[in-house]
Amino acid sequence: MDGTVKVTFQPEGKAAHVLPGSLIIEAAARAGIIIETPCGGRGTCGKCRVIVQDGCSETTDTERGRLTADELAEGVRLACQAKVMADTSVTVPEASRFFEQRILASGEGGTSRLCPAVAKRAVELAEPTLEDPAADSDRLLASLDDDAIELDIGAVRQLGSAARGDGGQVTAVLHGHDLIAVEPGDTTAQCFGLAVDVGTTTVVGSLLDLATGHELGVASRTNPQVAHGDDVIARISHAGDAEGLAQLQGKITECLNDIIGELTATAGVSPDAIYQAVIAGNTTMNHLFLGIDPSHVALMPYPAVLRRGGVFAAVDLGVGIHPRGRVITLPNIAGFVGGDTVGVVLATRLLERDKPTLAVDIGTNGEMVLGTRHRMVCCSTAAGPAFEGARIRYGMRAAEGAIEQVRLGDDVEVSVIENVPPRGLCGSALISLVAALLQRGILESTGRLVPPDALPADLPEALRRRVVEHGGAWAFAVATEEESALDEAILLTQRDVRELQLAKGAIRAGIEILVHEFGIESGDIDCVLLAGGFGNFIRRGAALRIGLLPLIEHERIRFVGNAAIVGAKMALACNDYMHQAEEISRRTEYIELGALPEFQMRFADAMMFPEEG
Amino acid sequence: MDGTVKVTFQPEGKAAHVLPGSLIIEAAARAGIIIETPCGGRGTCGKCRVIVQDGCSETTDTERGRLTADELAEGVRLACQAKVMADTSVTVPEASRFFEQRILASGEGGTSRLCPAVAKRAVELAEPTLEDPAADSDRLLASLDDDAIELDIGAVRQLGSAARGDGGQVTAVLHGHDLIAVEPGDTTAQCFGLAVDVGTTTVVGSLLDLATGHELGVASRTNPQVAHGDDVIARISHAGDAEGLAQLQGKITECLNDIIGELTATAGVSPDAIYQAVIAGNTTMNHLFLGIDPSHVALMPYPAVLRRGGVFAAVDLGVGIHPRGRVITLPNIAGFVGGDTVGVVLATRLLERDKPTLAVDIGTNGEMVLGTRHRMVCCSTAAGPAFEGARIRYGMRAAEGAIEQVRLGDDVEVSVIENVPPRGLCGSALISLVAALLQRGILESTGRLVPPDALPADLPEALRRRVVEHGGAWAFAVATEEESALDEAILLTQRDVRELQLAKGAIRAGIEILVHEFGIESGDIDCVLLAGGFGNFIRRGAALRIGLLPLIEHERIRFVGNAAIVGAKMALACNDYMHQAEEISRRTEYIELGALPEFQMRFADAMMFPEEG
Repeated sequence: MDGTVKVTFQPEGKAAHVLPGSLIIEAAARAGIIIETPCGGRGTCGKCRVIVQDGCSETTDTERGRLTADELAEGVRLACQAKVMADTSVTVPEASRFFEQRILASGEGGTSRLCPAVAKRAVELAEPTLEDPAADSDRLLASLDDDAIELDIGAVRQLGSAARGDGGQVTAVLHGHDLIAVEPGDTTAQCFGLAVDVGTTTVVGSLLDLATGHELGVASRTNPQVAHGDDVIARISHAGDAEGLAQLQGKITECLNDIIGELTATAGVSPDAIYQAVIAGNTTMNHLFLGIDPSHVALMPYPAVLRRGGVFAAVDLGVGIHPRGRVITLPNIAGFVGGDTVGVVLATRLLERDKPTLAVDIGTNGEMVLGTRHRMVCCSTAAGPAFEGARIRYGMRAAEGAIEQVRLGDDVEVSVIENVPPRGLCGSALISLVAALLQRGILESTGRLVPPDALPADLPEALRRRVVEHGGAWAFAVATEEESALDEAILLTQRDVRELQLAKGAIRAGIEILVHEFGIESGDIDCVLLAGGFGNFIRRGAALRIGLLPLIEHERIRFVGNAAIVGAKMALACNDYMHQAEEISRRTEYIELGALPEFQMRFADAMMFPEEG
Repeated sequence: MDGTVKVTFQPEGKAAHVLPGSLIIEAAARAGIIIETPCGGRGTCGKCRVIVQDGCSETTDTERGRLTADELAEGVRLACQAKVMADTSVTVPEASRFFEQRILASGEGGTSRLCPAVAKRAVELAEPTLEDPAADSDRLLASLDDDAIELDIGAVRQLGSAARGDGGQVTAVLHGHDLIAVEPGDTTAQCFGLAVDVGTTTVVGSLLDLATGHELGVASRTNPQVAHGDDVIARISHAGDAEGLAQLQGKITECLNDIIGELTATAGVSPDAIYQAVIAGNTTMNHLFLGIDPSHVALMPYPAVLRRGGVFAAVDLGVGIHPRGRVITLPNIAGFVGGDTVGVVLATRLLERDKPTLAVDIGTNGEMVLGTRHRMVCCSTAAGPAFEGARIRYGMRAAEGAIEQVRLGDDVEVSVIENVPPRGLCGSALISLVAALLQRGILESTGRLVPPDALPADLPEALRRRVVEHGGAWAFAVATEEESALDEAILLTQRDVRELQLAKGAIRAGIEILVHEFGIESGDIDCVLLAGGFGNFIRRGAALRIGLLPLIEHERIRFVGNAAIVGAKMALACNDYMHQAEEISRRTEYIELGALPEFQMRFADAMMFPEEG
């Protein structure tokens, strides 16, 4: 129950507890920091430079091949090569970060990618005179030099006093061609945006400084709609009448406003200085947020009501940013593939790839997109919330006290979030545990836990003792009553294994269908990108061992973290990505697995574990 | 006090009481019906055909020259030639009406001018299938075949249920490219619009059927803001703090909603089926309606805050039409020349005229525009509300009991609205009375009422007896205590004459400045168009006699009624006019009279009455 090391990441000061020998990129992912590894962690691109003084494994030949002597002397390491061995502190420069690379790096031709739809322009208004008593609106619009500007009611009401508040110096706040506010003086430095990933289970908000592109903070909440069911089908059912719909809409809006309150208080920013929010959510979350009755999403043939992205005034949705600020929902693809998946595709740049790339976003549902710049196909499986800890006997979310990784040596070794006595298993622990049980012969490829009398002869006694009876079947005690923070042992039950088989089988079968539809073999997949907060915690070997993913080289599997919110941040920070989002939504072909006779067969196959890892 | 005739106009059944010998066009104007007379009432164009069986003067040679024998046999007359002699009923065909000619007549190339910004389109949605489970939004947008459509939050929320309400038959409600509503079934026949003239004193609303172009009703109210002052300066002063502004905004919105309530109840139309409202008001009324602090309009150099027209969601302004319907304010020209004047210019087609045309809108303020297609100049004078009956001892609005016209024969002859004993004088009575007093030598050209001992020797005794002493000066009793509905005589006082001199002097001086600025002589004015509810009631001879207008032939003076609301109706019924309104607003040059040293001199001159009519 001990033996994890603490890695603190700078400049944010976020820490992760990991098992010794974990790569820095893995530890960073657990702290929610995604380090860019375009080469897939082969150590060939050198993009994942970090600075670390001690507590790491020896410098490798690969690193010496990429880093200069000066860099090596300064403690620069490649995060995909260096392993943490002891408590340490790692500084991650902006240039190595996933989101920042997408936004802050110079675009082609050297232009910045920071080009939000919201723009502030400070201008000096000429004084009106008797000879030219031009209206305030004309004097402002003349200085903005944009013939297409439309005046929003908010701006119209502020114009007169703003124009006289600071000697004719005013700041126009534009969203595209809409003039949404006019402020006295030069307020260009105060321009913020909000990106939100509205997950079925978790809502994450990020506050961006749109003047610099920097992230000022991240806050998350459990989606309060969970009180009305843990998956989208339960939510849709609850929204079946107007009252239920209004209730769910009210809850998510409140949750958003709560997140906004935390982010703005922490950053010392006025909510009125947030002029744009970009919302990425699955189609049901998107519909509930907008107050759209999602009933039909649950009925054959499962059409979305709204595919397109929308632009709405914050006041019309009750979102507590600037009342005339704009709330933008990323477009959906289909009834069960939503704006969050569009965000993932955006963040992982599938639209720019020449070789088949598979993005898998595992949350309460599992959405998968396979594609290149030429074609993209996607599907969705009701993975169920097993990976988020639900429907698992001792399952829990990846929060304090959750076991997040399990190794089986002579006995069980676990890493626990916040390094406290464990309270349960989160999704990644489930996968690493099942992979290890398979490896050690404690679990059969059919998914049956091996009874004590049939366990491999060479299994250490400590492990052998952990196979216990539970409700008429066998279970594996990850933590005994003594090791656990509960008054009882933390078990993996036979039923839990079945839940995992259903969840991973559905995802794997979906991947197979996409590969088939795309006309390739799974070995042709150039790269698998694992997205979702959950994805960060999966060990690639474990994912391959349980058959969640087709058998490909480790290096081709990459973690991209909460790519949905990265996509939302990209669309927030650069309006070109908003257009790309619409293109992704329009072009991505949706495959309804329920319509395919072969899906059931593939699903049955995929529920089995591979014979050999 | 008797001797008026009642003329009832069909099909609306509106009646006017006029003195015998009045032209049908004059009687119609008093009933609020503007008959188009492109030839200026010379009887040469034949556009003013009406049908009347009896009670009129003999058919003239001019009429026999324009009308066929069949027409004559059917009772067709020219409204600019036929005079009413006895109670009668007159049918006014659409083709003879001012507004309908502008909207319902075929445009160039035979196209209809009915092309509102609001359009309803009924479409049949394909059923979604498993093979093509396209989103409701995609299926709708595909059938609308317009790539630029933006989804309004209202439409987004209705889409799902509408798409399933009536076998896939839905009606999309578009405002330009904004999809503002989606309704189940084919509701294209239910599409209404509202045009409103927000006057400082009177608010008039007109309900149009946008599917046919027909007017379904007109309703008016006194602007409830009058409780806070009778002119724009008093309103601006009241709006000086946020509370006062909110109060005035609330009052005008309430008034509008009251008018909407009456119009929709009478016509049997749901307020939710009104998708667009076009508001014409002077700059101050426009600002108060939008919640813009108009303080600066009253301060040198009197700039408007907002010149441009605006498009706002009804819900954002509290206007009780469809909540996502659009409220459009006609653009202003300057701080004291607003959207109502733009409406007048639109209705009178100044933009299409080759010869200098003068439009004069007399309300609480007097606005004047002189122009051709090549150039337009305008100005505004604080005519004061004298013409609306305010600041006149026995003044009143043109309502029941108001004397509206006065002739002096052997004694006083008056026509009274609704033919009841008189309660006061409205603006047109003031003008016709003063003109008659001048003509008969009871009033000097300086504006002095002649004392009884200096009256012309040939003045009939009945008239002579009406010059009475009042407050140390002379006055003229239009109605004696016995003739009046009050307990006292209705007098025109010396002070009243001075008020009229100030009002008409300001307008006339403004006209002179425009003529000078335009580089012409007043004799070069091709046509004078008198607008405003008040304009309908003025007799051209009287207007010329008191020097309100430059001395030109009667035929060049035309009445265009409440042209501001006609302009608003045109912009409502045809979006091309909305663009024209913006062009008018942008192109019309504003002359600030206060900035011109010569204005005061011209004003002093113009206060005098002409020596000879």
